[in-house]
Amino acid sequence: MAKLMRWTIQWQGSHVQVEFGDATTVPDPLDAESIKRSFPLTYGQPLVHFVSSLEKPPPNGVQDQQPPLRVADIKSELPNHSEIYYLGGYDMLGRTKDQITSKEQVNAALNACQTLDLNGLVVIGGVTSNTDAAQLAETFAEAKCLTKVIGVPVSFYGDLQNQFVEANVGFDTICKVNSQLISNICTDALSAEKYYYFIRLMGRSSSHVTLECSLQSHPNMVILGEEVASSKLTLHDITKRICNAVQSRAEKGKYHGVILLPEGLVESIPEVYALLQEIHVLLKNSVSTENISGQLSPWASALFESMPPFIKKQLLLSPESDQSAQLSQIETEKLLAQLVETEMEIRTKNGTYTGKKFNSICHFFGYQARGSVPSNFDCDYAYALGHGAYHLLAAGLNGYMATVTNLKNDVSRWRCGGAPLMAMMTIRRLLHGLGTPSIGKPSIHPVGVDLKGKSYGLLLQNAEKYLMDDLYSNPGPIQYKGPGSDSKTICLCVEDHDYMGRLKKLQSYLDKVKTSVKPGCSQEVLKAAVSAMAYVVEILSLMSPAGTGHAYHPLEDTSANM
Amino acid sequence: MAKLMRWTIQWQGSHVQVEFGDATTVPDPLDAESIKRSFPLTYGQPLVHFVSSLEKPPPNGVQDQQPPLRVADIKSELPNHSEIYYLGGYDMLGRTKDQITSKEQVNAALNACQTLDLNGLVVIGGVTSNTDAAQLAETFAEAKCLTKVIGVPVSFYGDLQNQFVEANVGFDTICKVNSQLISNICTDALSAEKYYYFIRLMGRSSSHVTLECSLQSHPNMVILGEEVASSKLTLHDITKRICNAVQSRAEKGKYHGVILLPEGLVESIPEVYALLQEIHVLLKNSVSTENISGQLSPWASALFESMPPFIKKQLLLSPESDQSAQLSQIETEKLLAQLVETEMEIRTKNGTYTGKKFNSICHFFGYQARGSVPSNFDCDYAYALGHGAYHLLAAGLNGYMATVTNLKNDVSRWRCGGAPLMAMMTIRRLLHGLGTPSIGKPSIHPVGVDLKGKSYGLLLQNAEKYLMDDLYSNPGPIQYKGPGSDSKTICLCVEDHDYMGRLKKLQSYLDKVKTSVKPGCSQEVLKAAVSAMAYVVEILSLMSPAGTGHAYHPLEDTSANM
Repeated sequence: MAKLMRWTIQWQGSHVQVEFGDATTVPDPLDAESIKRSFPLTYGQPLVHFVSSLEKPPPNGVQDQQPPLRVADIKSELPNHSEIYYLGGYDMLGRTKDQITSKEQVNAALNACQTLDLNGLVVIGGVTSNTDAAQLAETFAEAKCLTKVIGVPVSFYGDLQNQFVEANVGFDTICKVNSQLISNICTDALSAEKYYYFIRLMGRSSSHVTLECSLQSHPNMVILGEEVASSKLTLHDITKRICNAVQSRAEKGKYHGVILLPEGLVESIPEVYALLQEIHVLLKNSVSTENISGQLSPWASALFESMPPFIKKQLLLSPESDQSAQLSQIETEKLLAQLVETEMEIRTKNGTYTGKKFNSICHFFGYQARGSVPSNFDCDYAYALGHGAYHLLAAGLNGYMATVTNLKNDVSRWRCGGAPLMAMMTIRRLLHGLGTPSIGKPSIHPVGVDLKGKSYGLLLQNAEKYLMDDLYSNPGPIQYKGPGSDSKTICLCVEDHDYMGRLKKLQSYLDKVKTSVKPGCSQEVLKAAVSAMAYVVEILSLMSPAGTGHAYHPLEDTSANM
Repeated sequence: MAKLMRWTIQWQGSHVQVEFGDATTVPDPLDAESIKRSFPLTYGQPLVHFVSSLEKPPPNGVQDQQPPLRVADIKSELPNHSEIYYLGGYDMLGRTKDQITSKEQVNAALNACQTLDLNGLVVIGGVTSNTDAAQLAETFAEAKCLTKVIGVPVSFYGDLQNQFVEANVGFDTICKVNSQLISNICTDALSAEKYYYFIRLMGRSSSHVTLECSLQSHPNMVILGEEVASSKLTLHDITKRICNAVQSRAEKGKYHGVILLPEGLVESIPEVYALLQEIHVLLKNSVSTENISGQLSPWASALFESMPPFIKKQLLLSPESDQSAQLSQIETEKLLAQLVETEMEIRTKNGTYTGKKFNSICHFFGYQARGSVPSNFDCDYAYALGHGAYHLLAAGLNGYMATVTNLKNDVSRWRCGGAPLMAMMTIRRLLHGLGTPSIGKPSIHPVGVDLKGKSYGLLLQNAEKYLMDDLYSNPGPIQYKGPGSDSKTICLCVEDHDYMGRLKKLQSYLDKVKTSVKPGCSQEVLKAAVSAMAYVVEILSLMSPAGTGHAYHPLEDTSANM
C-alpha cells in the first residue's frame, strides 16, 4: 500500500496527460462490419494512455486539469478516501445480477443521467455489465446526452480477459481465500487419511478460479470445464478417470485426496449440456417440472432418470437471465462423489479393486469467499482503475474501459489508460442442432481457460506429481503486512500479457523503418526494406482468419463459448 | 513472535526452577474418594510453577539442569526448531479420534514405552486424550515404569476448561478462520439482500466456537446448545423464534440475515436427544436401520416420521465412541432452514406474514478451518506448553498437564506450570429415565458455555442490536505481522480467569495473618483475628456442596453434561 500511496501522490500532485494511440479494431475481423453497424458512434475509437505531465511535457494530447465532475457510482470517488481503502465492492455498493435487457431500461438510465446532469456514469462489473456499458455509451451518444459512460473490469470469475485487460478486480482475493480453505482441507485430508474431499468452486462458465487455486494449493486432482469440453469427456469418462486415480492411490496405501471442480463443469459435459438445453426449452414453454421428464427426447430422458433425485431437482431449476443453468445450485461435486462411490463398489465386487472403502466429503465454496476483505493487489488495482475512470471522464471520453496493464510488475511500472469497449466485442454464431445458425448480438463474452496458455501448462506439467505425491501447499490467509502481502495470482505472473508493451514495440519498429529508409537512401537499403516488409505483410495475410475461410465457430472450438 | 522469542531465549538461557504449591483436590468434594480410589498413586499431587532461576535464587524447589530426555511425540521437541514454528498439529502429527478403551491398549502403551526406554510420553489433545493420559500415568506408576506421562491441552472445541486451563491450543485459530468466513457471508447477505444464511459450526457438544465467532463477527442470530438445553427449547420453539426474527426484520424491509448454530445443537434439543438415545439403543441391539422406526416408542416414532428424509438418514448413523451422535454429519442447519421455510409459508397463507418469500442457503464450516496455519497466539501458546511439558518431565513429574495461565496478558507476563490431571476430574451421575442412576468413570469432561459468564453476557447484551441493525464486523484473515496479529479470542479477554493469581493472593493473606498475629500479640488483635477467621470459615462451609445435600446432577443442571 505504501508503494501505491507514493504512486497516487505522484498522480494527484501532477497533471495527468492523456495521449491517444491508434484507432482500434475488434478481435475477429469477421465481426467488424456488424459491430460497426450496431455501434456507429462509438466504434473504432483510439486507445488512450495516461502519462504524468511531470515526466513529459504536454505534446499533442489533452491536458487534464482535474475539473470537478458529477459522477454516478461512488467507486469513482474512492481515491480520495483512504479510510475506505480496504472495503470491498460488496461493502460499499452491494451487488445485482440484473442485466439491461430492454430499450425501456436503457431509456430510463438515459433520463436519470440527464435529470441528474451527470458528467459520467461508471459501470463496475464483468462481461455482462460492460456489454451494458457499451450499449449505454452508444445510446447516450446518439441522444447527444452529455453523460459519458466508462466501464471498470471487476469480476470474481476472472473471465473478462482480452488484449487490454490482464486481470479482473476481485479475482486475486477470491483465489487467495479459496486457496487458503482448500489448503486447510488438504492438510485435513492428509491428517485424517480416510476421506476424498470433492470441492466445487465458483467461476460460472469458466474455470479460472479453479485453475489458480490449483496452482496455489496443489490438490491431487482438478477437472477443468475447458478440458472436458475440449476432449468431449462424458460423465462416465470423468467418473472413470477419478476412479482410476483413487485406485492408483490405494495401491500406494493412500485413501485420501482432494479434488477440485469448477461450478461450470456440469455445462461442459456434452450430454449434460444437451439435457439442460432440452429442459430449458421445455421450461420456457411453461411445461411444469413434474411433466418434463416425459417430454424429453428418449436419450435425454434416460440420462435424466439415471440421476440421483437431488440432482434431478437441481437440473430442473429455471435458467439464469443469460440462459446458463443455475450453476451455484447444481451440486456436481455430490453427483461425482456418488458416481465414483458406485463405480468403486462395482470394482470391489468384481475384484478389480481390492483396497479399502471409498469415502467422500463434499464442499461448495461459493459464498464464504465473496465479501472478503480485498487483498492488497485488488485494492491497488481497483484504486488505479478508479483513478483511470476519473481521468477518462475528465478527458470527455465515452464508451471506454479503464485499463491498467503490466500488472505483474511493480506498481510503479503499471501503465494506466483506456480501451474502447467496442474493441472487446465479438459475435457468437452458434449451430443449434441441425437448424440454421443463430447469430448473437455483439457482446463482451466470457473467456475460458486457455488450454494452450502457460498457466494451464504449469498445472499439466505437475499433474502427475500432485496426484500421487500429496505435494499440498498452503499459502495461508491473505496478509496485509510483511511476507506474502505483495503476492499476485500465479496465472497473472506466468502468463505473458504484455500486449500494450508489444503494441508500443511494433510502433517503434515501424517508426525506425520510416526514419532509416527515407527518400535519398541507397537502392539496396530500399530494396531490402521492401522485400522484408513484403514478407511481414504476407505472414499477416496468411494469419488473417478471413483468409482461412472459417465462417462459424462450433461450440467446441472456442473456450469463450463454454 | 518477536516477544515470544525473547521470552524463549530468557527461558533457554537460564535454568528453570520448579516450585511446588499446595496439594490439589478435585472440583467436586463428592467425587474425591472415588477418584482417589481409582488413582491412588497420582491423586492429590501438588501444583507446579516454573520460575526462571535468573529472577530468583533456587529455594527449596528442584533445579532443572535440562538433561537430555527420550520423549515420545515430536511436539515436545518443537521449541528448538523455529522453522516448524508455524506448522499446525495436523501438519506434523496427523490426528486420530481413537480413544483408549481397553486394558490391552494401556498395556501395549506401557510395553512400548518400556521397550523404547522413554523418559516421557506427551499426550496432546482434549478432554478424552487427557483422561487417557491420566489413566496411563496411574498404570505406569503402578507398574513402576520410568516413563512419565504429561498432557497438553489442545482442542478446537475449547471445551477443556477448568481452574488451571484458560484456553486450548487451536481454538484461537479455528475461531479466527471461521469468523473470517462468517463475516464474508454477512457482507454477502447484506449485499444480496435476499438470503438467510444458516451456518453450522463445529464444537462437538459445546458451543464455545459458535459463541466466540458471534462475538467476532456479529451475525444476526445465534442459537447456543447450552441455551436450548437450559431453557428446554423444543424444535418447534427454536423454529418459532427464528420465524419471529425473520418476520420482525421483514417489517423493517430486511430479507437477509445470518444465523449461527453449533453442531451440538441437535443433541441439546430435549426431544431430539431422547429420540437419538432410543435410536442408539436399537442400533446397539443390532436392529437394522430400516426397522428402527417401527421399534421406537410411539412419540419418538412420530417425531422421527415428521422429519425430512435427509435428516432421518443422518439420525440413523451409528454413534461415536463416546456415545454422542455423529454431529458433523447431521445437517441441523438444513433441518431448521426447512422448518422455518414451512412455517413462513403457513404464516403467509393465514395472513400473519405479508413479506416476501423466505430464502435460505446452508453451510457447514467443519473442515475448512481445521488444518489452517495457526495464529500467532496459538503458536506462542503451543510453544510455551511444549517448553512446560519438557520441564515437567525433567522434574520427573507424572500425571500432570502443562499449563500456561494469565494468557490474556502480554506473553512476558504468562505464568507457566503444571497441574495434576486428577485435579480436573469429575464423575457424572446420570438419571436414565426412571431406572437407577448410573455412575460414570472419573473423567475430564467437556465444559459447555457458562450462561452466567461474561462472554455470554456480552452476546446477550448485544443480541437485539445484532438481530435488527446488521452490525456485522469483519475481523479479516489471520495476520502475522502488523495490526491485529497479536489479537486473542474475545472470550479469553473478557473472562476473569486469574485462578492462579487468586490462589497466590489467598496464600499471601494467610501468610499475613500468621505473621501479624504471632504469640505475644495483644488479646484484642487475637480476638479480632479469630472472629474474622470464624466468619471466613463459616462462609466456606455454607458454600460447600456437601452442605447442600446435592447427590445427583440432573442433566439440565450442569453445562458439562451437554
